Amino acid sequence: MPQEKLAREKVLRDPIHNFIHVQDQVILDLINTTEFQRLRRIKQLGITSAVFHGAEHSRFEHSVGAYELARRITDYFEKYYPSKTANDGLWDTSQRLVTLVAALLHDVGHGAFSHTFEHLFQTNHEWYTQEIITGDTEIHTILAQVSPDFPNKVASVIAKTYTNPQVIQLISSQLDVDRMDYLLRDAYFTGTKYGEFDIDRILRTMRPVKNGIAFDIGGMHAVEDYVVSRYQMYLQVYFHPVSRGMEVLLEHLLHRARELYKQAQKNDIEDQQFIGPLLKPLFDEKLTLSDYLNLDDNVFMTYILIWRHHPDPILSDLCCRFLDRKPLKSVIMDNETIPVREKLTKLVEKAGYNPIYYTAQNDAYDLPYDDYNPTSAKPRTQIDFLLADGSHQELSQLSTLVAAIKGKASIDQRFFFPKDMLKENGNDLFSETAEHFRSFIHNNALKDPNTSV
Amino acid sequence: MPQEKLAREKVLRDPIHNFIHVQDQVILDLINTTEFQRLRRIKQLGITSAVFHGAEHSRFEHSVGAYELARRITDYFEKYYPSKTANDGLWDTSQRLVTLVAALLHDVGHGAFSHTFEHLFQTNHEWYTQEIITGDTEIHTILAQVSPDFPNKVASVIAKTYTNPQVIQLISSQLDVDRMDYLLRDAYFTGTKYGEFDIDRILRTMRPVKNGIAFDIGGMHAVEDYVVSRYQMYLQVYFHPVSRGMEVLLEHLLHRARELYKQAQKNDIEDQQFIGPLLKPLFDEKLTLSDYLNLDDNVFMTYILIWRHHPDPILSDLCCRFLDRKPLKSVIMDNETIPVREKLTKLVEKAGYNPIYYTAQNDAYDLPYDDYNPTSAKPRTQIDFLLADGSHQELSQLSTLVAAIKGKASIDQRFFFPKDMLKENGNDLFSETAEHFRSFIHNNALKDPNTSV
Amino acid sequence: MPQEKLAREKVLRDPIHNFIHVQDQVILDLINTTEFQRLRRIKQLGITSAVFHGAEHSRFEHSVGAYELARRITDYFEKYYPSKTANDGLWDTSQRLVTLVAALLHDVGHGAFSHTFEHLFQTNHEWYTQEIITGDTEIHTILAQVSPDFPNKVASVIAKTYTNPQVIQLISSQLDVDRMDYLLRDAYFTGTKYGEFDIDRILRTMRPVKNGIAFDIGGMHAVEDYVVSRYQMYLQVYFHPVSRGMEVLLEHLLHRARELYKQAQKNDIEDQQFIGPLLKPLFDEKLTLSDYLNLDDNVFMTYILIWRHHPDPILSDLCCRFLDRKPLKSVIMDNETIPVREKLTKLVEKAGYNPIYYTAQNDAYDLPYDDYNPTSAKPRTQIDFLLADGSHQELSQLSTLVAAIKGKASIDQRFFFPKDMLKENGNDLFSETAEHFRSFIHNNALKDPNTSV
Amino acid sequence: MPQEKLAREKVLRDPIHNFIHVQDQVILDLINTTEFQRLRRIKQLGITSAVFHGAEHSRFEHSVGAYELARRITDYFEKYYPSKTANDGLWDTSQRLVTLVAALLHDVGHGAFSHTFEHLFQTNHEWYTQEIITGDTEIHTILAQVSPDFPNKVASVIAKTYTNPQVIQLISSQLDVDRMDYLLRDAYFTGTKYGEFDIDRILRTMRPVKNGIAFDIGGMHAVEDYVVSRYQMYLQVYFHPVSRGMEVLLEHLLHRARELYKQAQKNDIEDQQFIGPLLKPLFDEKLTLSDYLNLDDNVFMTYILIWRHHPDPILSDLCCRFLDRKPLKSVIMDNETIPVREKLTKLVEKAGYNPIYYTAQNDAYDLPYDDYNPTSAKPRTQIDFLLADGSHQELSQLSTLVAAIKGKASIDQRFFFPKDMLKENGNDLFSETAEHFRSFIHNNALKDPNTSV
Repeated sequence: MPQEKLAREKVLRDPIHNFIHVQDQVILDLINTTEFQRLRRIKQLGITSAVFHGAEHSRFEHSVGAYELARRITDYFEKYYPSKTANDGLWDTSQRLVTLVAALLHDVGHGAFSHTFEHLFQTNHEWYTQEIITGDTEIHTILAQVSPDFPNKVASVIAKTYTNPQVIQLISSQLDVDRMDYLLRDAYFTGTKYGEFDIDRILRTMRPVKNGIAFDIGGMHAVEDYVVSRYQMYLQVYFHPVSRGMEVLLEHLLHRARELYKQAQKNDIEDQQFIGPLLKPLFDEKLTLSDYLNLDDNVFMTYILIWRHHPDPILSDLCCRFLDRKPLKSVIMDNETIPVREKLTKLVEKAGYNPIYYTAQNDAYDLPYDDYNPTSAKPRTQIDFLLADGSHQELSQLSTLVAAIKGKASIDQRFFFPKDMLKENGNDLFSETAEHFRSFIHNNALKDPNTSV
Repeated sequence: MPQEKLAREKVLRDPIHNFIHVQDQVILDLINTTEFQRLRRIKQLGITSAVFHGAEHSRFEHSVGAYELARRITDYFEKYYPSKTANDGLWDTSQRLVTLVAALLHDVGHGAFSHTFEHLFQTNHEWYTQEIITGDTEIHTILAQVSPDFPNKVASVIAKTYTNPQVIQLISSQLDVDRMDYLLRDAYFTGTKYGEFDIDRILRTMRPVKNGIAFDIGGMHAVEDYVVSRYQMYLQVYFHPVSRGMEVLLEHLLHRARELYKQAQKNDIEDQQFIGPLLKPLFDEKLTLSDYLNLDDNVFMTYILIWRHHPDPILSDLCCRFLDRKPLKSVIMDNETIPVREKLTKLVEKAGYNPIYYTAQNDAYDLPYDDYNPTSAKPRTQIDFLLADGSHQELSQLSTLVAAIKGKASIDQRFFFPKDMLKENGNDLFSETAEHFRSFIHNNALKDPNTSV
Repeated sequence: MPQEKLAREKVLRDPIHNFIHVQDQVILDLINTTEFQRLRRIKQLGITSAVFHGAEHSRFEHSVGAYELARRITDYFEKYYPSKTANDGLWDTSQRLVTLVAALLHDVGHGAFSHTFEHLFQTNHEWYTQEIITGDTEIHTILAQVSPDFPNKVASVIAKTYTNPQVIQLISSQLDVDRMDYLLRDAYFTGTKYGEFDIDRILRTMRPVKNGIAFDIGGMHAVEDYVVSRYQMYLQVYFHPVSRGMEVLLEHLLHRARELYKQAQKNDIEDQQFIGPLLKPLFDEKLTLSDYLNLDDNVFMTYILIWRHHPDPILSDLCCRFLDRKPLKSVIMDNETIPVREKLTKLVEKAGYNPIYYTAQNDAYDLPYDDYNPTSAKPRTQIDFLLADGSHQELSQLSTLVAAIKGKASIDQRFFFPKDMLKENGNDLFSETAEHFRSFIHNNALKDPNTSV
Repeated sequence: MPQEKLAREKVLRDPIHNFIHVQDQVILDLINTTEFQRLRRIKQLGITSAVFHGAEHSRFEHSVGAYELARRITDYFEKYYPSKTANDGLWDTSQRLVTLVAALLHDVGHGAFSHTFEHLFQTNHEWYTQEIITGDTEIHTILAQVSPDFPNKVASVIAKTYTNPQVIQLISSQLDVDRMDYLLRDAYFTGTKYGEFDIDRILRTMRPVKNGIAFDIGGMHAVEDYVVSRYQMYLQVYFHPVSRGMEVLLEHLLHRARELYKQAQKNDIEDQQFIGPLLKPLFDEKLTLSDYLNLDDNVFMTYILIWRHHPDPILSDLCCRFLDRKPLKSVIMDNETIPVREKLTKLVEKAGYNPIYYTAQNDAYDLPYDDYNPTSAKPRTQIDFLLADGSHQELSQLSTLVAAIKGKASIDQRFFFPKDMLKENGNDLFSETAEHFRSFIHNNALKDPNTSV
């Protein structure tokens, strides 16, 4: 029987939670599927390790980490807040397994370099997550053994359409197992301290309420610290301009490869072989689920290695830059300076670079926290506190810090260009060009806190 | 020669900085003085260990910790920013020793339970610090051997009247060696995480400028995190209502002892012996420097132990409560509820407690950060960043989080009363009293984030 | 009903275990007794903070830490190994409360500077622990409310005569909650790393067996690491010669005070008042339990402060040395050099020091690990592993490292003397004396790994 | 000029050392070469992340970590022990750059899954390290700009033939920058605690002496702890049977692929294309340096992904097992049980598995510490302490723990087989076979401390 508990729990050693406790046969079986093991081959932070060299950690470990948090929370709810009657707003203990499974699988559809990939190839990792859960996969087989409707239940949690709002909020809200795990984990592996917060206190003050999850007022400062930590991680790590300079290279080189492949197809020349069997379905825009599951970080990295010797000078150059960590440089743009972008692009072109492949506008964006807008179609994800009289209060009403960032997007807009544009070289044919370029960049870079130190 | 470097540095093992590196004979000699060793017998956080039981750390270790940070900074400045010409705004390496000594001695005048003590006995630890440095002490002897004017130099750094503004800012500003050490140290010993920040990055981005200290723009996020951490430590640790409930007891019991002593003096009865030889000068308001240096935490705690058996029921009761950790309870007051205070006090009195000794209004206050007000008489302590073009920008102009708390005091006003007032007891003569009391307290406590969890 | 569980657990913030979880009314009540709160005023490591300045932590926090480990273990045993039939060797869940209480109270009889104190005054903290549990105390009152025989039960666990050997081994064996907590805690507060080990893995592999506690074979390396850590903490921290140089001073000054007091009594002079009311019963050798409970670190420290101004030059000098951290120096002695001790003592005397108060032989000793000797009267405390076939194997048979230190005492024998004996001073009348002394010390100190670095 | 110091040091954020400080143009240029950047694509611990999922860290970060330790040590030596006359046994400051470069490049020749790879293809990463330093590479170009003989100097340090024994010992001895970094790093990323030791104290007590490096006696316990930590990491992490079960799969699948390729070549069939362009030179045994530098973890992982669909059932099955983390199981063998191996192999064959690809004998071996054997040809690598009189003493003479493991190899010999052999299945044709197999394995596995917990 797949719902059975293991006679003795198994543990995985984890640097963040020390141990991941696996107590159910289903969880163990899901971890052992080919689709889940594939997450070991996809980095959690994509190319970020080009800046923070410790950040080589995989989506596999984040997924089991999110599961572990869900396990701790559901154990805690089961002990302290078990529902006794329908609609008492407490924890329905029969929701345990669907919660654990949804936490474990919430990212299972992620592909290599998701951000870049999805943008370029118009795919969507959430769609793949749904497919993996409900389609012809080992994961689906295991889930269906729990009960015929179990796969759809799990899928609906991830789609946020599940009937129990507590379960949905645990898996996806502004304070969910996903965010809690990735902040702690990314802080640990990057070696930054901004992502640390008091996870134990947050978990202790979490509680089920009607329509979702709330926190005891005693957890307010810990929750505030979590929101602030997340805000800082975005500005310091996730928005880092050097990672984005690498991402831009990756996007451009894949773009270039696709162009070359299309051209080769049109001319029916043999050269279309360079694309390789694994990437072919992607470039042909005929990607089946099975093809998708065959793509991981290694595959992209390997073809980039092969393409560095491709006869096309642009493709090979972009591949070399990517492999040898020569990111495009960037300058912050704001509403004032954005009009200059066109002029800068022309200067880059004048200097001999094809601006399609050697410049980019790349905008990083995050909404650090927002309260619930009843007129919005989006589900409620705000963080609420339970006061002693049973009433609720929303986080930004209690915290000055959170109020300051509520509803305000963090935005970091940058224009990317080849580093050579900044070289000072008296003999340079383009010295004048470069000089114009440099002086603009120089003036605009003054205040950039992401300057290396 | 007292200015000489040690042939080989000595180290003290320290949980925060791992090692404290002592490289100068003067520093070693100062640490070995009787006045400095006395700091081992004074807790850094007074009675806070009644709440955070790990917080037993002493002012000795904070003082050597502040010294260690000053040592690291001056070494760094000497290596990277040594002054070459007068007024080039760089680091005058001849300021090294005065900086290290001022960092080491900045708290040397602190007495036992300074906060309570100073309030009750109208003393001032800063005045004592000056006295210890310039008066008849071992410390003064050592300092005078450096050069005759050296004691006054050190004293003027602490008094913020020294000629070199960089030295002053390192020792006392909104981001100085004192605050950096105590935040890290208090976080470690209390076991909270709020006080942690990226000290290494802050130290790396610090630099001498004309008129003081500034930070490279690349240190902005680390500095922001420091300000936020400090803000959170105040709300979470330093303002904790249970510590303050203990402080109120301490103040009241010393107040009571003083009253009894005065009465006994007046009546010329033998009973005035209870005050003991060490506290006598204090209660006689004839405290010499030498008397002051004879007072430490142990002395107060010992007399409280003796007084628990004193015939006066109020003194003995307050001593028992203090020793056995039975703090007065509290409720948050705001402008609306403060008028009720008088009524509550009457209820306490009606229940049989002398309100002078069993109630208190205690207000905790901190200004988390403020920029410089040119019209103010206070020295400039704001945090400035150096932009690439040499111009400066003040922290709150760069950080949304700091802007949100700039210039706004954190205030936590509380009314303290005996816990018994909240007891429910049907047979209680004062049940009606208690009921009134309870309902007010209950309604006002709803939103208190310092509720235990 | 005193056995009842709290409606909602309370937590204490702890730097080692993050939270101490209090789930029973009895535990909460015991913590709130005057006898238990007194442990806040007694340092866990006595005078060790003279060397490792962070080590100011109290016996209070160690006691709640040992309790917390017992709580985690009994919870784990209750979940995984509950006894079903008598004598099945599994965990009898009715033993929970007695185990938790014994863990909490195991050190409650400790006095100030126990080591020194017990040696000099012929007292015994274990005897006081028994007295506090069974005598006229708040603790006894609370325990007796559980059931009339509960105090004796708890006392018998601590006396190792309790019927259930599992409970005894959890509280006192070579791997018990006491040792596990103090190693982790002392490592944290001293800032050394030697005491760290994998507590989570040890707790996970612990299990009840017939006649005691054993470990799953999978925990072998973690247990080995614990034994090695403990061995290293003894050599590095607990045996530290500077702490012992301070302890020697303390013992000598108390000895001197006692001599002066006896003399004063004999001569019936007023001077016997110097001893003060709290220490009088101790010096009169008429210490009641209640007197004992009135003694803590503060009391000793306060009288030492007072005695530094005592007319007796030896007493005042020893007090100054102790307060100002001027420990006696030491040299390692072994079987070869011990005969020289008498000669050295004479040299110290010749230099003008009374050797009774200015020299000492101080031997530190620990048996890092030993297996069970069936012919011994001592209870079985060896560490056993459970193999897959149900048989047991003792730790040193599995671990090369443990086998190397099994049954071998760590011993560090030192001769203490005034530091001045090593001063080089051409004008010194005793220069020849000093020279002889110095050369011996020098030759013998070559290999001392406790040299400062 | 390539030897010049950077105007301002650059830092890399590192979880172990917090910052890697780059102060020389040469070091920065070397890090930016294509050969060094390639180390980002090679995991430090190969397939170990199959067990310790955090262990995804790369050889890049270990290499910069070893560099950082070398930088700290040479800075320290330069400050405290600079040589003044030839042969004074102190630190020759002109050795700084060669030491830093050798530390940075010591592993630059490592390939993907070095252990497995070298065994199967008879290559040697040390040979490649030499080639990269002295051959036609970007690294060589940069080194040659320092001085024409600089590449050979660096190479000779790594080959242990360099003239300065201090430099050699810092780079390769029983306590070198390589081992110190990897122990700390592997402990951090695996999340185990065994590898932690007091790096700061070790670095402080290190000093140059005639013929090499020694340690102040005050560092003895820290060094002992390092040796014990290393010993424990081998037993707990590096010897882990599950990683080795994965390595065996990897070796077997590469072996199978090579067999299939050879056969295909012989038959001149098109099927030899499956090997791909990057691996072809390897399988053809014509691997140039440039071909070698094109191989990284990604390439192997990608071809394994492709081969999982290869028509050969053995190759595809082994690839699936490897990708989906289905390692071969193992049992410890010792001298007694090794004779049974042949019988077990036959049982596996009888159960339908080709034993060449489905069984293996895999022996893990480490010599945790050894002193110097003057009759050996190997260079001196023992750990020596400097006593106060200038004489030396070797570690195992001072440490009981180290003496216990000195010269004794840790050996873990295992026989690997398909997990299915242990399945109990009544209908199994091979049930008798399985039963024999199971009972042997069961009896021999009793004492295995690497049992999962």
